[in-house]
Order: sequence, then C-alpha cells, then structure tokens
Amino acid sequence: MQLSTRTQHLSSSLVREILAVAQQPDMISFAGGLPAAACMPELDLSRIPARFNQYGESQGEPAFRATIAAHLQTLGLPVSAEQILVTAGSQQGIDLISKLCIDPGTAVMVERPTYLAATQCFRFFGARLIELQPGESGPDLAALRTQLARERPAFVYLIPTFQNPTGQCYSLATRQAIASLLDEFEVGLVEDDPYRELVYEDCERTPICSFLQRAKWVYLGSFSKVAIPGLRLGYLAAHPALYDALLKIKQASDLHSNRWGQYLLNEFVQSPAYPAHLNALRQHYRQQREIMADCLNQDFAALAQWERPVGGLFFWVRLTQQHDMMALLQKALANKVAFMPGQPFFADTSQVYPAMRLNFSHSNAAQIKLGLQRLHALLTESSRPARD
Amino acid sequence: MQLSTRTQHLSSSLVREILAVAQQPDMISFAGGLPAAACMPELDLSRIPARFNQYGESQGEPAFRATIAAHLQTLGLPVSAEQILVTAGSQQGIDLISKLCIDPGTAVMVERPTYLAATQCFRFFGARLIELQPGESGPDLAALRTQLARERPAFVYLIPTFQNPTGQCYSLATRQAIASLLDEFEVGLVEDDPYRELVYEDCERTPICSFLQRAKWVYLGSFSKVAIPGLRLGYLAAHPALYDALLKIKQASDLHSNRWGQYLLNEFVQSPAYPAHLNALRQHYRQQREIMADCLNQDFAALAQWERPVGGLFFWVRLTQQHDMMALLQKALANKVAFMPGQPFFADTSQVYPAMRLNFSHSNAAQIKLGLQRLHALLTESSRPARD
Repeated sequence: MQLSTRTQHLSSSLVREILAVAQQPDMISFAGGLPAAACMPELDLSRIPARFNQYGESQGEPAFRATIAAHLQTLGLPVSAEQILVTAGSQQGIDLISKLCIDPGTAVMVERPTYLAATQCFRFFGARLIELQPGESGPDLAALRTQLARERPAFVYLIPTFQNPTGQCYSLATRQAIASLLDEFEVGLVEDDPYRELVYEDCERTPICSFLQRAKWVYLGSFSKVAIPGLRLGYLAAHPALYDALLKIKQASDLHSNRWGQYLLNEFVQSPAYPAHLNALRQHYRQQREIMADCLNQDFAALAQWERPVGGLFFWVRLTQQHDMMALLQKALANKVAFMPGQPFFADTSQVYPAMRLNFSHSNAAQIKLGLQRLHALLTESSRPARD
Repeated sequence: MQLSTRTQHLSSSLVREILAVAQQPDMISFAGGLPAAACMPELDLSRIPARFNQYGESQGEPAFRATIAAHLQTLGLPVSAEQILVTAGSQQGIDLISKLCIDPGTAVMVERPTYLAATQCFRFFGARLIELQPGESGPDLAALRTQLARERPAFVYLIPTFQNPTGQCYSLATRQAIASLLDEFEVGLVEDDPYRELVYEDCERTPICSFLQRAKWVYLGSFSKVAIPGLRLGYLAAHPALYDALLKIKQASDLHSNRWGQYLLNEFVQSPAYPAHLNALRQHYRQQREIMADCLNQDFAALAQWERPVGGLFFWVRLTQQHDMMALLQKALANKVAFMPGQPFFADTSQVYPAMRLNFSHSNAAQIKLGLQRLHALLTESSRPARD
C-alpha cells in the first residue's frame, strides 16, 4: 500500500512512550499536562435529552456555541456563535488549521520553544517551521518584524498566555505590538489559549486576536484543563473569512463532535458551580506551584534556572550545564519519576537543549517533593565529572 | 492568510444544506442515514469510573479495543486488540487513511456510485478518483483486473455489505475474487462496513479483508448505526504494517477519542441487552423497508427502477427518464419532503444521474407513505411534457 509523502514527517513516538510509561501506577509523573484527578467536576448525568443521541451539526451544538461566544466576548473578543466551531479538543483545531493552510514548504512561525504536538502536526503537513527569537515578554519584536517581512508565513502560531512549555505570559504592550505587526504584514494568527483560566497572579490575558484589525485569525480554546479531558472537547473561533472552509474541513474529518459531552459541558459551564470550580482549581494549583517552587529553590539553584509561572501547569527548568537528557530520562524512569525533556519543544532540532518541563498539577505534595529529590540526585550524579 | 492548495477541492455544502433543511420539525426526511430515534438504546449512566475523566491513550480504551477485536474475530477477521484504533466515527477513519496514503494525484479506486463523504475526503487530499465498473454483484471483475493493472492505485475503497447508496451486498465469490486480485496486484483495500449488523435476509457478509493474503488493508467499523450516533465513536482495524503510522496520525489529529463514550459503549455491547437490541433494530427496520417497498411497488413502477435491499438503510431509486434533480429537490423541500439526489454519490461529476437515495430508518410508517405520495406527485408532474 503506497503511503503519502507526508508520512515521512511522522515523528518518533518518544513523547507517547514517555506518557505511556508515566501512567504506571507507582510512577511520579511531571511529564504530561494532566489536570489533578481530584479537581475534576462532577457532571450531572441524570438527564441527557434524547435528541442528543442523533447525528448532529458539524458546527457543534447551537446552545454550546452561544455559551462559548458569550464567554469570549467577556475576554474582549467580539465574536458571534456563528464563528464558533466545536472540536475534539484544541488538538483538532490545530489539525483543521493545518489542513486549511499548510502545503509542503509553507512557512509557519512558532515560538522557541513551543507546544510539541502543534509542531508535529504542522510538520506532518509539510510546513517549513521558522522559530521566533525569544524576547523579554514573548517574541522579540524587532526580530519578528524582520522575519515577517522576509518569510511571509501562512500564519504565526502563538501561546501568549502561560506559554507551553515556558509558562511565559505576554505583556499588554507585546500583545498590541504583535497585533500591529501582523496587521501591517497581513499575516494570520493562530492563538492557542488552553491555560488562560489557570491563573495564579494578576496578569494580562487579553487575546491578541482581539487587537487585530486586518489580519485573519483563529483562536483555540479547550475544556480539558478546566473540566474533563476524557470528554475531548474544545473549540475554535475564527475570522469570518476562514469559518466556512474550516467547517467543511471539520465535516470531512469526523462529521461532528460528541454531542453528550457538549450538552453536559454546556450545562456545567452555565451553572453556578463553574465559577466556584474554577476558583477551587486555581487555589489548588497555586498551592501545588508553591510546593514545586519551594523544592526547586531549595535544591536546584546551582543546577538550573527557571521562573515561577503566573499561570498554567508547568515549570520550565533550564539546566546550567549540558547533560545527556535521554540518558537522564531513562535513569529517572528507572527511579519512577517522569519528566518531559526540553528537546521536542524546539522546532529547530539541530541543537541540544538541556531543559526539563515539569508539571505540578498532576502529582500531590508528597509526590512533588519526592520526585524532585530523585531528580536532584540524578542531576547531581550526572553533573559529576566522569571517573577516569 | 494564505490557504493550502487542497482547499480548492473543498466541495460545495449542498449535502450539509440538505441535511440541515431535513432537520426541520415538519420535514419528512428520506435524505440522511439517521437511525430511528425510538430504537436508540438506553445506556447505563449510573457509574462512569473516575479514571475515564483523564486524558487517555490515542489507541483507545484497552477493554473496548479487546471487545472490538473479539467481535471481528467472530466475523472471520483474525485481528488482535493491538490492531484496533478507536476513532471519532468511521468518518475519522477515512480522514486518517487519506492522510496516510493520499498525495495530490494519488489514484484511489471507488465504486460507482459510492459514499459521498468518503470521496469528498479523498478529493480534499488531492486523490485522482477512478470509478470501478459496476457488475452483477459488486464491481465487474474483468474491468477491475484491467484497471488495477493500468492504474496501480494506492488503495481501493469498497463498501461490500449493504453498499451506500445502492444497498448491494457482494456475493462470496465476488469477495474472494476481489481479494485474489488485490493480492495479485498488491493493492491495498479500505473496507467500510458500517451497516453490516442491519441485515434483513440471509446473505454473505464476510469481510473481504479476511480473505487477503498479501495485500494490506484497513477495515472501518462504526457504532453510529447500531447504538448512539451522537457519541461519535467508530474504529478501524489495520494490517500490522499500517497500524503504527495510523496511530501517530490519530495522535496528531485529536490525541484520543471521547473516553466516557468508549466506556459506556463497551459496557453496552458486552451486555445481554446488545444482541436483543440488534434483533429489535433489525425487526423494526425490516418492517420499515417493507413499507417503503410496498409504496414504491404501488406507485413508482412506471417511473423508476430499484432493488429491495437485503440490509442497510436505503433504497436506491433510478428514474427511468431524465429530470432536473435539483429543481425536483427544491420542489420536494418546499413540499416538506427531503431526499438525497444521486449525483454527489458519483466520483465522475461530468455526467447526470437521475437517481434518488431514499432512507427508510428515520421516518415512521405514516411519514414514509405520505412522503412517497408527495414525491410521486412531483415526479409525475416533472415527467409531463412542458406545455407549449
């Protein structure tokens, strides 16, 4: 059976292997971006109206789309329900956008580092990935201008709020400046915003999409971080000029998304339980972040650098000297602690990045302490000069 | 925002428009392939274990995959759970296969006519569609040999059991002969089998995949016709050489499928309620088929030709003279009856096919009778020579 040329870009299953191993019951996992099991809401299953049994609309449920549009309006993004497309998680949004925009060789700009499953998908469709230079708060703006002028990419993919993996949150000035540059060059924006509700300090979170005047855009949202990932539901909001094509592509991809989940989530996010749930979630994760910050401050200062994230699920820990990160990962897994090595988050695979992404939402306090002790011991051992 | 060349192949939204209009409450719809609302099973929602809340494996739930593999073994397809990939309906299986195999210009062979949402997806990825010549029972075998030798397609896409839209069911000899030809030319098979449980008479239903010795294959199954379409769950079983790539493609497409639905369907299909449900479904649809057959026999004999399908959800009604099918459809919709015109089921769009696909599962007996009376009146009027 003859395979497509794009299958040559299928990336290795390292990440899936790490995540599979990380599911072992005695493993302390800092690897995935899994929400805390204890913080998942109880949905009301007592009544799912029979009409949700039938095939549904490719767009998603009208009531759910209206709820999502109303929510986005409160963020400053003036969208109507007609611009909302319900997806199987925001990962499907990334797939739909790739189908919409990417031919072999199409230029796509991404942060350095960025979400690995987005670059995997872009690369699969043949994108030529261009890394943005990191600046103080988001990409360096002067470099961005130069790159936009030179490369004219199909779109720029950004995670401006609690970036994955760095945790960075762009300032208002950066958001406005990026919007202005994208408008000037008429380059599209794909803004991925799964973590925005997981906020632990005051910070700017207005979507960059809301500042755009001329450039086209797609905004990606998810219910996996604030509700139930197992339901696999997210959404996109799109510039009106892009919506119809995205809808047709969605229809060809899976006809529509799971309707029971859409009904249950719509009931939940409209209920008074939802804001209370978000508050409890933020409080819990803020505590977890403090525990991980304390452990890192205590033991890792000589080994690594990091910032305390103001939101999201991760510490991005850059080691101050080179380590064989794959060997370190293997030793860590043998010691029943999992982390995500930094390398797959970089589109430029020619260099080596001694970094770890550490998740603080999934493990409890005792696991965070014990897991970091084990990592510290392995790193100290790995830093020691080899005996000769 | 620069769009991909494949967006030029996005087909018109005619079908989606028909299905949307068909949802109007006073519409008698023969258009879609909707199961009868009254025949949907009641699933037991009293207990969904909390572990199904979390992110899951891209492959699907292990227990569900084991159930599916055991079922396929009873059909004569000797697969293990490691060959099963749970999908968002079999439509997603078509998307994954397109990503796996289709580059712009890749030859794909399809029946004439065939499932329109499959050809839409193949075409979107740039496939060059080649229609097989229809024979007595499935494709004409001599023509298939000639075409396989000449075109060497990436794969042949077939619906051998209760074909959509024709309702045809291939004989055992045809199934074996096709398998033998595909083995000889080492051309892959994509076998789409969503209707197999909706069987009303004894007939051959062994998957062609089970006869293959050398050719690679993907078998597509669905739970939408036998359980709850709103859950959007199906599966594929793949030749071992194709599975790993399909799994990676699935991961990039949506990470995994809805876990609650997988748990609930697995519980249901393993319960004693499932075979009883299938029997009741077959009995109900057999009655509906009889009602539609009686109405057609009574009124349509002078206007059209059709066969009584031995399974599935549709009558394929070929009109004996040309009609402006789009004008007829508009008049029918104005008269509150919807059907699916034949044209979009043909990959070759250069010819005109005066045919209608009529669904008998969704409407009740009174609606079938009334809807066909209205269609008969419109067809009679349309057949009358224009006054001059």
